[in-house]
Amino acid sequence: MCEHGTNLRLTLPLTCVILEVILIILFAVLVEYDHETDAKLWHKHLLQHNDSNYNNDFYYRYPSFQDVHVMIFVGFGFLMTFLQRYGFSSVAFNFLIAAFALQWATLMQGFFHGMHGGKIHIGVESMINADFCTGSVLISFGALLGKTSPVQLLLMAVFEVTLFATNEYILLSILQAKDAGGSMTIHTFGAYFGLVVARVLYRPQLDKSKHKNCSVYHSDLFAMIGTIYLWMFWPSFNSAITAHGDDQHRTVMNTYYSLAACTLATFAMSSLVGPGGKLDMVHIQNAALAGGVAVGTAGEMMLTPFGSMAVGFLAGTISTLGYKFLSPVMEKKLKIQDTCGVHNLHGMPGILGAVVGAVTASLATREVYGDGSDVFPEIYAGNFSASEQGVRQAISLAVTLGMALVGGVIVGFILKLPIYSGPPDTICFEDAIYWEVPGEMESQEELGTVMSEEVQKPLNS
Amino acid sequence: MCEHGTNLRLTLPLTCVILEVILIILFAVLVEYDHETDAKLWHKHLLQHNDSNYNNDFYYRYPSFQDVHVMIFVGFGFLMTFLQRYGFSSVAFNFLIAAFALQWATLMQGFFHGMHGGKIHIGVESMINADFCTGSVLISFGALLGKTSPVQLLLMAVFEVTLFATNEYILLSILQAKDAGGSMTIHTFGAYFGLVVARVLYRPQLDKSKHKNCSVYHSDLFAMIGTIYLWMFWPSFNSAITAHGDDQHRTVMNTYYSLAACTLATFAMSSLVGPGGKLDMVHIQNAALAGGVAVGTAGEMMLTPFGSMAVGFLAGTISTLGYKFLSPVMEKKLKIQDTCGVHNLHGMPGILGAVVGAVTASLATREVYGDGSDVFPEIYAGNFSASEQGVRQAISLAVTLGMALVGGVIVGFILKLPIYSGPPDTICFEDAIYWEVPGEMESQEELGTVMSEEVQKPLNS
Amino acid sequence: MCEHGTNLRLTLPLTCVILEVILIILFAVLVEYDHETDAKLWHKHLLQHNDSNYNNDFYYRYPSFQDVHVMIFVGFGFLMTFLQRYGFSSVAFNFLIAAFALQWATLMQGFFHGMHGGKIHIGVESMINADFCTGSVLISFGALLGKTSPVQLLLMAVFEVTLFATNEYILLSILQAKDAGGSMTIHTFGAYFGLVVARVLYRPQLDKSKHKNCSVYHSDLFAMIGTIYLWMFWPSFNSAITAHGDDQHRTVMNTYYSLAACTLATFAMSSLVGPGGKLDMVHIQNAALAGGVAVGTAGEMMLTPFGSMAVGFLAGTISTLGYKFLSPVMEKKLKIQDTCGVHNLHGMPGILGAVVGAVTASLATREVYGDGSDVFPEIYAGNFSASEQGVRQAISLAVTLGMALVGGVIVGFILKLPIYSGPPDTICFEDAIYWEVPGEMESQEELGTVMSEEVQKPLNS
Repeated sequence: MCEHGTNLRLTLPLTCVILEVILIILFAVLVEYDHETDAKLWHKHLLQHNDSNYNNDFYYRYPSFQDVHVMIFVGFGFLMTFLQRYGFSSVAFNFLIAAFALQWATLMQGFFHGMHGGKIHIGVESMINADFCTGSVLISFGALLGKTSPVQLLLMAVFEVTLFATNEYILLSILQAKDAGGSMTIHTFGAYFGLVVARVLYRPQLDKSKHKNCSVYHSDLFAMIGTIYLWMFWPSFNSAITAHGDDQHRTVMNTYYSLAACTLATFAMSSLVGPGGKLDMVHIQNAALAGGVAVGTAGEMMLTPFGSMAVGFLAGTISTLGYKFLSPVMEKKLKIQDTCGVHNLHGMPGILGAVVGAVTASLATREVYGDGSDVFPEIYAGNFSASEQGVRQAISLAVTLGMALVGGVIVGFILKLPIYSGPPDTICFEDAIYWEVPGEMESQEELGTVMSEEVQKPLNS
Repeated sequence: MCEHGTNLRLTLPLTCVILEVILIILFAVLVEYDHETDAKLWHKHLLQHNDSNYNNDFYYRYPSFQDVHVMIFVGFGFLMTFLQRYGFSSVAFNFLIAAFALQWATLMQGFFHGMHGGKIHIGVESMINADFCTGSVLISFGALLGKTSPVQLLLMAVFEVTLFATNEYILLSILQAKDAGGSMTIHTFGAYFGLVVARVLYRPQLDKSKHKNCSVYHSDLFAMIGTIYLWMFWPSFNSAITAHGDDQHRTVMNTYYSLAACTLATFAMSSLVGPGGKLDMVHIQNAALAGGVAVGTAGEMMLTPFGSMAVGFLAGTISTLGYKFLSPVMEKKLKIQDTCGVHNLHGMPGILGAVVGAVTASLATREVYGDGSDVFPEIYAGNFSASEQGVRQAISLAVTLGMALVGGVIVGFILKLPIYSGPPDTICFEDAIYWEVPGEMESQEELGTVMSEEVQKPLNS
Repeated sequence: MCEHGTNLRLTLPLTCVILEVILIILFAVLVEYDHETDAKLWHKHLLQHNDSNYNNDFYYRYPSFQDVHVMIFVGFGFLMTFLQRYGFSSVAFNFLIAAFALQWATLMQGFFHGMHGGKIHIGVESMINADFCTGSVLISFGALLGKTSPVQLLLMAVFEVTLFATNEYILLSILQAKDAGGSMTIHTFGAYFGLVVARVLYRPQLDKSKHKNCSVYHSDLFAMIGTIYLWMFWPSFNSAITAHGDDQHRTVMNTYYSLAACTLATFAMSSLVGPGGKLDMVHIQNAALAGGVAVGTAGEMMLTPFGSMAVGFLAGTISTLGYKFLSPVMEKKLKIQDTCGVHNLHGMPGILGAVVGAVTASLATREVYGDGSDVFPEIYAGNFSASEQGVRQAISLAVTLGMALVGGVIVGFILKLPIYSGPPDTICFEDAIYWEVPGEMESQEELGTVMSEEVQKPLNS
């Protein structure tokens, strides 16, 4: 097929090998098993506390972790295969970036949150957090899909993970905000960071690749694999690192009902605004997930089931309308080419989630939470009032937006340098530039001929 | 492509919005967190019982719930994508109906089973039950696939969920029957309800859409995603709400072996009856699952591993033969157009499962179950003899069939009104009537041309 | 399409029915619920030990089991769908063989490991082990893909499971080697057994089917479903039967980091050796998984996170280079036609894993493991020195290779008999020989015509 002269052979191996060697060295110097994964420490713990192996936190976090893991690799990966000729890149670059980012996130998050005597201690909880941070990078990837090389994406991950960890530290540790499902830290940050990078990397001639920037029948079905997995496991995502017990249980339930209501809103709006009342797969694939994003902050709070449903319904509505009316405007007026519409799926619903979180927090009372001190420990301890918690949540949103915008501009300009084997405007959204792409299936007629010739010969080996 | 004048733009948004608003209002009035999801109640429980967060039932039900959830959304959804031009509708209408039904089922089942002081208390167990009820609706959807609008399907769900909850209440609470995996409540009910609706909605001119009522190569592979997930997670389905401990463990194992034996029977029968001994994907996709249906009642009982295998083998055999010989007769003689063959996968195996359950129950002895009082608490308490339990199981089957048949007739006639944007006989099994369908991939030749033109230009962004 | 005269109608039903009947009889005679799945025994246990249902091992093994189960049926099944015209056979024969092998493995492994008073006791742990043994058969299947009938594959499974159980017994019980993730027992054994069988079944005229022995665009995406699931759940695979507590937790983490590093190595190498620096889907689909294989033995040991990453990086490198340079040589010089390249994914990484395990074991000290006696109970008890454990690990690798080679030759010759409905050289890699294959989707133009005719008619049912 096409033989392009990108210098991927030089840049990609070099980038991967250098990054991985640095990671291995830093892990060797800095990273240790925590007391639940270290043979010696855990057995010491068992003896000292007369504890049981069944109480290793592994058993209470790992199923959630695996669900999150599926969302990161299958969910995000296949959601982006909707493009007709970019399926290899979608699922495989997603795979590459995520595999890198989770290692790098272990270090960055460990540096900010998990240092013990100069060492980063790791276990299942740090694995979940690393996957979360990775999710943020993949959201940004969604805005850039089809227009960037794997080298650019790896480089973006280096910077974005660092900024993510910084922002997360400010929100959770300094501001004492709550954001278990990452409406702010993951979705708002990832979306606006990616949108700003997309703005900086604006391609005025992108319409030369326009005919490839759309789906075909089968690619839309592959994308639905991603959608459905994201939808099903979002309750695990939002609850994966909440406190054990009622918190985790409640977060799951709130997310479950929010998503269900969001789905009905999405179908309603999609048909309402579609030509001839017809549904649009883009809406179903994406907007039906906005309900998970929108309860990312408040999911662990006493949001009530009907509150979750109302939030989900609103999120699905906003998101679908965003795809229909806002995205074209953003591309035309703001010059933001947002391939996957992450603004509609993660951006606006993320902000909605942050606001819902702030409001719900500011309404927290002892009467409702009783001794359930895990959700708002500072309020419970009497250090904050509920309204102060609400204000801190709101400030957190502002900080996140600021970090994303400033960070995105800087990283965008770094990625603009013409040294990363990026695709030309004429061959965007096209696997063949980075992949050895196989041919299509031989037609049935040819097969038929072959068969009828073969059928004369004796069979059986 | 085609621009049909269905009034979906009117009916679908209206239906979705009205239903969801009603749901939100009813949830606001009626639904509360249960003591394991409510911050205050759970922490009170912890203090009073000196209990640990690790003993929240969440940790002992949620992994099973997630497996069931995958079956409902990926399993049922993709199993139905086998049609060549109905993949969007299959997976997305499945998604829509399920998202609605699980909310409505929470209310209906809560009304019958879970009222506490005028409120419905919800937690992970109610979520599993809601998914179960949803499964029943999706089975009925299988019989109607390709011939009904999403509005009809939502309306059907409204009624079917209500009937399901009523039937379930009669069986489990009044008759004290056992049916953890739902051979009767889910499979028999869902299948015969759907078949009767299909009979009432009989389309004499459906052969005008015949050329679309079949699979293509790729659509069969998408369907296998559904099959395999259903097959793998069926042990979780049958055990999701059994008693903890040996019950859940045993149910998983019985289902595992039943399905394995069923698979061998399916391949054997498919080759035996196929033209030239060739296998038929329809059989593999469906009949191999019958073993899970057939131990839906007896799976939690002391069925023994070899007993499970024998039941599974029988189920696979019946189901495959049903697809081959019974379905054509049912369509021709009984005018039942059963798109997915739910009679073979859920109907007959469901009845088989009910019978096996009745027989196994009637053989229960103290010698076999010891103090394992969870399976048959009434026998253990001396309230019933084993044979009475068996009789009650048999009566339950009869009640289920009666409810399904009568309910199906009534609902069928309601759905027959010409106001739901249903497809005409000539455009059944066709996505384009409800969806904006993208084109097919541009041919390789065109791509090749584009590429060779582009390759002259300088690369690298 | 093609109507071949294979005698599958005779051989396949006969084989399936005979095998399943034998299985049912042997299960009836030999297999019993263990004390955690038997109602009477478990309740006796509860009373005697004042224990809780929550301590049934089900809750601490079943989530891992389900992940392994997904790897066996979705992972292996879809990984092999990369061939353009062999998707039905890949996923469905995988399904058939696995369904048989797990039953047979229950008996064979029970015979060697789990006899209690003349009975085989089964529970979730035996289910995991049965799935593991099945994995080994599926690896061998990978080498033979497209060239063997389902009858041959079932027969191979009969023998291979038996040999697997024998080898496993020698390694784990006699030699007291450690191999929780099966670098030796599963991967090395399965790969070399399959390669030897492929050698014996060498087809000199296979290039007559060469045009079908490659992928198309969509088949590569289906294969990526398999890849990603294997990759995500490999941590569960390696940890599924390790000791509870820190062991399981640590194994998961080591595997997670090994795979991440392996993925970067794979992308680097694939681009480095690809024409024009382009990536090859075959490498990404397969070599990125080698990191899981390579920590199959040492994963439960105190390998350290950076150690795991280094091993993974090495495995990805070796595996990718194997696909590029070694496989063509093996086919040409050694006459081994290894369809899926199992030598590169399971063979070499398996040996690497065995060596890493031997070295890591020989370095075990009390200072590192403390009272963590589960990993090396014999060293802890003072029965072995660490270096003796290392030597036993090395001997285990040699035994495994010997068993695989000798067993493979014998079984290969048995499978060579011309009575199993195998495909001729001209119709290898082709579903149509065993399946009723549907046509392709009608072209858009035809559809368009149909539509425009239909659009005139009144709509609405």
